[in-house]
Amino acid sequence: MMDVPSSDSPPVAPVVAMVGAGQLARMTHQAAIALGQNLRVLANASDEPAAQVTPNVVIGSHTNLEDLRRVAAGANALTFDHEHVPTELLEKLVAEGVHVVPPPHALVHAQDKLLMRQRLQALDVAVPRYTSIESRDDLAALDAFAGRADAPLVVKAVRGGYDGRGVRMARDLADARDIARDFLADGVAVLVEERVKLRRELSALVARSPFGQGAAWPVVETVQRDGICVQVIAPAPALPEDTAAVAQRLALRLAAELCVVGVLAVELFETVDGVLVVNELAMRPHNSGHWTMDGSRTSQFEQHLRAVLDYPLGDTDAIVPVTVMANVLGATQPPAMTLDERLHHLFARMPDARVHLYGKAERSGRKVGHINFLGADLADVTKLRGRAELAAHWLSHGQWMDGWDPHGKADHDAPEASPARSGEERRT
Amino acid sequence: MMDVPSSDSPPVAPVVAMVGAGQLARMTHQAAIALGQNLRVLANASDEPAAQVTPNVVIGSHTNLEDLRRVAAGANALTFDHEHVPTELLEKLVAEGVHVVPPPHALVHAQDKLLMRQRLQALDVAVPRYTSIESRDDLAALDAFAGRADAPLVVKAVRGGYDGRGVRMARDLADARDIARDFLADGVAVLVEERVKLRRELSALVARSPFGQGAAWPVVETVQRDGICVQVIAPAPALPEDTAAVAQRLALRLAAELCVVGVLAVELFETVDGVLVVNELAMRPHNSGHWTMDGSRTSQFEQHLRAVLDYPLGDTDAIVPVTVMANVLGATQPPAMTLDERLHHLFARMPDARVHLYGKAERSGRKVGHINFLGADLADVTKLRGRAELAAHWLSHGQWMDGWDPHGKADHDAPEASPARSGEERRT
Repeated sequence: MMDVPSSDSPPVAPVVAMVGAGQLARMTHQAAIALGQNLRVLANASDEPAAQVTPNVVIGSHTNLEDLRRVAAGANALTFDHEHVPTELLEKLVAEGVHVVPPPHALVHAQDKLLMRQRLQALDVAVPRYTSIESRDDLAALDAFAGRADAPLVVKAVRGGYDGRGVRMARDLADARDIARDFLADGVAVLVEERVKLRRELSALVARSPFGQGAAWPVVETVQRDGICVQVIAPAPALPEDTAAVAQRLALRLAAELCVVGVLAVELFETVDGVLVVNELAMRPHNSGHWTMDGSRTSQFEQHLRAVLDYPLGDTDAIVPVTVMANVLGATQPPAMTLDERLHHLFARMPDARVHLYGKAERSGRKVGHINFLGADLADVTKLRGRAELAAHWLSHGQWMDGWDPHGKADHDAPEASPARSGEERRT
Repeated sequence: MMDVPSSDSPPVAPVVAMVGAGQLARMTHQAAIALGQNLRVLANASDEPAAQVTPNVVIGSHTNLEDLRRVAAGANALTFDHEHVPTELLEKLVAEGVHVVPPPHALVHAQDKLLMRQRLQALDVAVPRYTSIESRDDLAALDAFAGRADAPLVVKAVRGGYDGRGVRMARDLADARDIARDFLADGVAVLVEERVKLRRELSALVARSPFGQGAAWPVVETVQRDGICVQVIAPAPALPEDTAAVAQRLALRLAAELCVVGVLAVELFETVDGVLVVNELAMRPHNSGHWTMDGSRTSQFEQHLRAVLDYPLGDTDAIVPVTVMANVLGATQPPAMTLDERLHHLFARMPDARVHLYGKAERSGRKVGHINFLGADLADVTKLRGRAELAAHWLSHGQWMDGWDPHGKADHDAPEASPARSGEERRT
């Protein structure tokens, strides 16, 4: 009677090993299921986002060579949920025959901001003016740099930052010096750069296969608040076609020059003069590509798997004219309702919200999920952004920013008016 | 440095227990991941489609009460990947406090074709003319029925059939009698009905929550070959708007009358006179809804989870004007290339194919995956169907029906001409 009483074995599935078991690994698992692949994750603990949802988990540390060997054993490819694996360990794995993608000599450009800046300059790619400080003895260089650069300054840890951590804004030279000393005291070299006068931030997301095929998604606008991405708009509104093409070509060129395999996110500043300046690189599925899960023919997670296994890449066209992604960030004070209860209420108000939750404990500012909204018309972007803001704020805080009350006397005919923005957005 | 070094626990996830671990459970798991839910499956073996991809597996049988209790223990809801759980076991679980959805008194209409027909008649819903035979002594009723009905006759097992099994076409009365005897010898009661003169087959897919909310997807056309669905076209081409509305209202009404919770598929015959006749019911995600994974705002798998946990239901609008789904069926002779190798070649030719594989061994006629194609224009339907046919045939057989050769001299400018159809389609 059953459909699957089989004693015959399922087809042999390609195995992709992923270092890290955060939300990116979790969503990659969803894509691997559809392609008949087997994703194996290296997790610090069994309750991490990906480890909750896949049976193929190796518990261990990304800084332990033995653990890395265990997750890589027999896999067709070893790839990453984050950038934090020491390069020397990856080089050892490569020497032992592990197919590491992106390869360590590519990945290092997403790990070391100084190396990345130097390489981009060598490739004649615009980057913010910067100086580097590797020890307290170099602090004098900061003074010289401050003399040439416009305030305010941005001080960054060369390695190990993410989601705004490892990046601090300095009010003035003295402040910059203090921040740099903090980082140096932690044994981390420092990059000091001038703050680019920007119109907005963009992201050019591409994928590249070992065969050399490249594919670019539409260029998106990323909206930051307090150094954390809060919204992504795909495509970037009113971006001139030729500027978008420049950004896509730049990202494809960098993917090829740096020998990237997999997804590459090129975070860009669009300056007030309309010039594109490279801010950061990431060589993995990236927050600026979460919209592709619902808004593109091929999601970045499927594409990453296709690239690391050297399949032909998927169609990167948008399915709808505009998609808005909003991150759900943990609140400072946890709401009284559980996240699941808040989800019920969200669905009651917005049946078209495409919700992706990560199975993470809510901590202040931590990304615990995201929501996509699809729009049938480019002109819908303001309305979509308003709805995305309401939805994300509701899931984060358990409060409707517009005062909507499902059981009250609120105006049900206009339940989704664009809310006032909370906090400061880095957009001029 | 890691994003998830947490000692704090992830949020409590609602647990949905699903009886069966086939492809429907596998795809439901993908949807559960996004909603932050925990799908637990009852699998006969650890290599079944869903058991391969989720850590939450109970090994056991759907006919064993203890196994059913184990999978249901502590779950927020118990639901189904197939219809084969004996009603008396479900009634026991209900008596023990398990939240069985759809409830046994609803599900029985998807398990017992005779009961279903009787209930539909009582509700004044059109069904094919039929008679039932519960023992050899009733065989005389067959003769009487044959006198009233038009040949050919269709003989069906009252319980236990799926994918065309348990359904056989009789050439004449003597043949019908032989087939009925076969079924009866297996201890299965028989339904004999006249073969409806049909224009095509349709499916009206809806979902219903315990709260009573209903939601209907666009009505689709299902194309059958040798009793197995090979393609689904969403929406059904050229279906008059009022007929579509009648089908949707009928399905929503049946969901309410039968107390369905979850997805309900109403398989319909559209007769040559444009009348809708109910053929079968399924109370779970259904093959005719696989297009929703890529073509609808809310997939049937997410909707089923939302319904059984009594969330507000999701938006059922199509994202694009037309979606074509093609099933990948195991070939009689396994191709020389592995399925994974065939997938590489498919992606090389059709970068927009949305592929969903089930991790199943390929056996003749067995559903091992499906492919969705999205079209930007209703007029694309013929071209999309041709491409879907080519793609599915390639994945099944490792042969391009149009003779395309990626390394040869084939005409690359017209690689996707509509192929000649293989086999007989049940469409007039």
